[in-house]
Amino acid sequence: MATTRPRRLARQVSIVGAGLSQFGAYPDKSSRDLFVEAFHDMQDNIDQGISAQDIEAGYLGNYSADLFEHQGHTAPIMADWLGMTPTPITRVENACASSGSALREGVMAIASGMYDVVLVGGVEKMTSLPTEGVTDVLASAADGLYEVPAGLTFPGIFGAIAKAHMDRYETNLNHLLKVGIKNHENGKLNPKAQFQVTVRDMMDRRRIAWPLRLYDCAPITDGASCVLLVASDIASQFTDKPVHVAGMGQATGRPLHDAEELTSLSAAKIASAEAYAMAGIGPENVGVAEVHDCFTIAEIVASEDLGFFEPGEGPHAVDEGRTARTGDRPINTSGGLKAKGHPVGASGVAQVIEVFKQLRGEAGARQLTSPDLEFGLTHNVGGTGGTCVVNVLQRG
Amino acid sequence: MATTRPRRLARQVSIVGAGLSQFGAYPDKSSRDLFVEAFHDMQDNIDQGISAQDIEAGYLGNYSADLFEHQGHTAPIMADWLGMTPTPITRVENACASSGSALREGVMAIASGMYDVVLVGGVEKMTSLPTEGVTDVLASAADGLYEVPAGLTFPGIFGAIAKAHMDRYETNLNHLLKVGIKNHENGKLNPKAQFQVTVRDMMDRRRIAWPLRLYDCAPITDGASCVLLVASDIASQFTDKPVHVAGMGQATGRPLHDAEELTSLSAAKIASAEAYAMAGIGPENVGVAEVHDCFTIAEIVASEDLGFFEPGEGPHAVDEGRTARTGDRPINTSGGLKAKGHPVGASGVAQVIEVFKQLRGEAGARQLTSPDLEFGLTHNVGGTGGTCVVNVLQRG
Repeated sequence: MATTRPRRLARQVSIVGAGLSQFGAYPDKSSRDLFVEAFHDMQDNIDQGISAQDIEAGYLGNYSADLFEHQGHTAPIMADWLGMTPTPITRVENACASSGSALREGVMAIASGMYDVVLVGGVEKMTSLPTEGVTDVLASAADGLYEVPAGLTFPGIFGAIAKAHMDRYETNLNHLLKVGIKNHENGKLNPKAQFQVTVRDMMDRRRIAWPLRLYDCAPITDGASCVLLVASDIASQFTDKPVHVAGMGQATGRPLHDAEELTSLSAAKIASAEAYAMAGIGPENVGVAEVHDCFTIAEIVASEDLGFFEPGEGPHAVDEGRTARTGDRPINTSGGLKAKGHPVGASGVAQVIEVFKQLRGEAGARQLTSPDLEFGLTHNVGGTGGTCVVNVLQRG
Repeated sequence: MATTRPRRLARQVSIVGAGLSQFGAYPDKSSRDLFVEAFHDMQDNIDQGISAQDIEAGYLGNYSADLFEHQGHTAPIMADWLGMTPTPITRVENACASSGSALREGVMAIASGMYDVVLVGGVEKMTSLPTEGVTDVLASAADGLYEVPAGLTFPGIFGAIAKAHMDRYETNLNHLLKVGIKNHENGKLNPKAQFQVTVRDMMDRRRIAWPLRLYDCAPITDGASCVLLVASDIASQFTDKPVHVAGMGQATGRPLHDAEELTSLSAAKIASAEAYAMAGIGPENVGVAEVHDCFTIAEIVASEDLGFFEPGEGPHAVDEGRTARTGDRPINTSGGLKAKGHPVGASGVAQVIEVFKQLRGEAGARQLTSPDLEFGLTHNVGGTGGTCVVNVLQRG
């Protein structure tokens, strides 16, 4: 039957521009407003300029405008508001990995030969519902037949993962707290980030789902993100600092009720192995990584699943400052979902934007100074690992 | 900036297998059950067999399991139920054109060089809600800012389109009725179709949205569909009767409140022009077409937008029997959405399956007998033309 072979693209694809809306809680902004704001930010940041009518196809990552705003078929509405019609646009949904998956579609659309210039974005307007409503909408990304009826919300699920990691390794509450402190310190240097909090704030002991406390959880956020992808052979028409998509991996995990273990997400291991193989690198070559820290424990698990550290070593790496901006393995320099905010459908592309900026030397006060920064990685998770998307980006 | 050029794929892609669930109202079947049923039907119909683990990537068209079943992140659940994990799978949503768009993603994924064997399907479980609830969910595919608050449901919108067509051309109620009678006659020959009704049933005068009556409307349906796509150079491993994807077009229409006219969908004209150009054919070469007859008037408008007939000629073509199975321009030999049923996320791929079967000579009692049947077309609409996807298929 089908041959098994290393994945490769028929044409190389590059990122040449990126835009983010402000992340936060905005009662007066709908999805449309947020997405237009991100697009305008991107237009301001593309050296040679870009008009909506120059784009040949679009992809929109969105988890559930259906449930958050009672609006389906969101992609054409965004195209209309950008002035992009009649250009084709398609919504992609893989829970909190929606725009991570959307990016893959944009890359493959160009590599297929169909298009040269593709917009990929993500958006989520979450604060229209009260917190319990948001928790319920997010829980619908878990398995509604087995997991949700058992009372598993996402904080509950990641609480169980944290407890399992603590039971199996030497992980403790201080490790979790230190992930949050690191990410909020990074977030303070990110003008788009939702939160500016102090270490004193983070000592808040309110329990959400034991052992997770309030500041172990990413916030509820309104926000949007977008990037412009082009065939690498025309990238110079847009910028002299393109960033290439060197490797991509996506994998599907079995639902948590059926997972072999709780201290690792199998989809993350498979997706990253595929992305590394395609890029021809290993974890040791990754100079900057944005990982899916929907909860502090998720960053520790990700840092192990991605091969940065051995299983059980993740918490010690945090203790030793290795994942800080000044460490040898900087993670979530943007502030991560934790501090930057987590508008779920927008997060995958927002991660890509941070790596894009770091590789171009445009990350402002949070810029890494390593002179040999060549490869960066993003790790975007949907549900409890039902989907994991890993991208390897390379400085052009 | 970007070059304008005819679209082409770096690799040719073929359809080698197809499966449908029964279409109907099934209180005991969820989306999962329906999708597994379609997949098993496909397995039974692939000459050389296929296992879920032979598939390298999947795409699922689904409009709103979120609102119909309170289940988001549906694609990984389907993969789990098929035994397909850890293969990547992604949900695509463009309202009633969701699986039409999903098919494009599958084709481009193969053409990009990433994969050789891709599953594309669609599913919708709609009868879990009462009719008013379904109408409300479908209305959320229109623009929630301008259209829905004005009271526009889909029957209302297509009623306005029918009235506009009647005002501008010689279209009358009998033309609409004849579309329905033709499609139900075809549907009687389709063992998967939802309805078997008599002409007497169809004389039912109950008004839904003037001038549309009960039998002018496609039904509410539970159902699923899937096809197996492979790189054409390995198609012979699966079948000796592949069907090639010769042309694809997708376009985004402005919302109806902003459309230039009501008697035509601009996105359908643009998408079909693109698909014809890519395939190197014109409408005169299309031997069989499945068009999006969510309402009887929609089939007439489609037959004009696709260039089969001049504007205003569509109703006369129905009168003259030209769109019947025995006519020179057969449309909706499957029974169309009208008689086969319209599980919205599944319909785009279900259309492709009918054309696949006709081109292979496997359409049973409804098989067309034209000896030179080489090209077929599908026309799949999301919302009121917010999305239109047109595919041209060619006998291999």
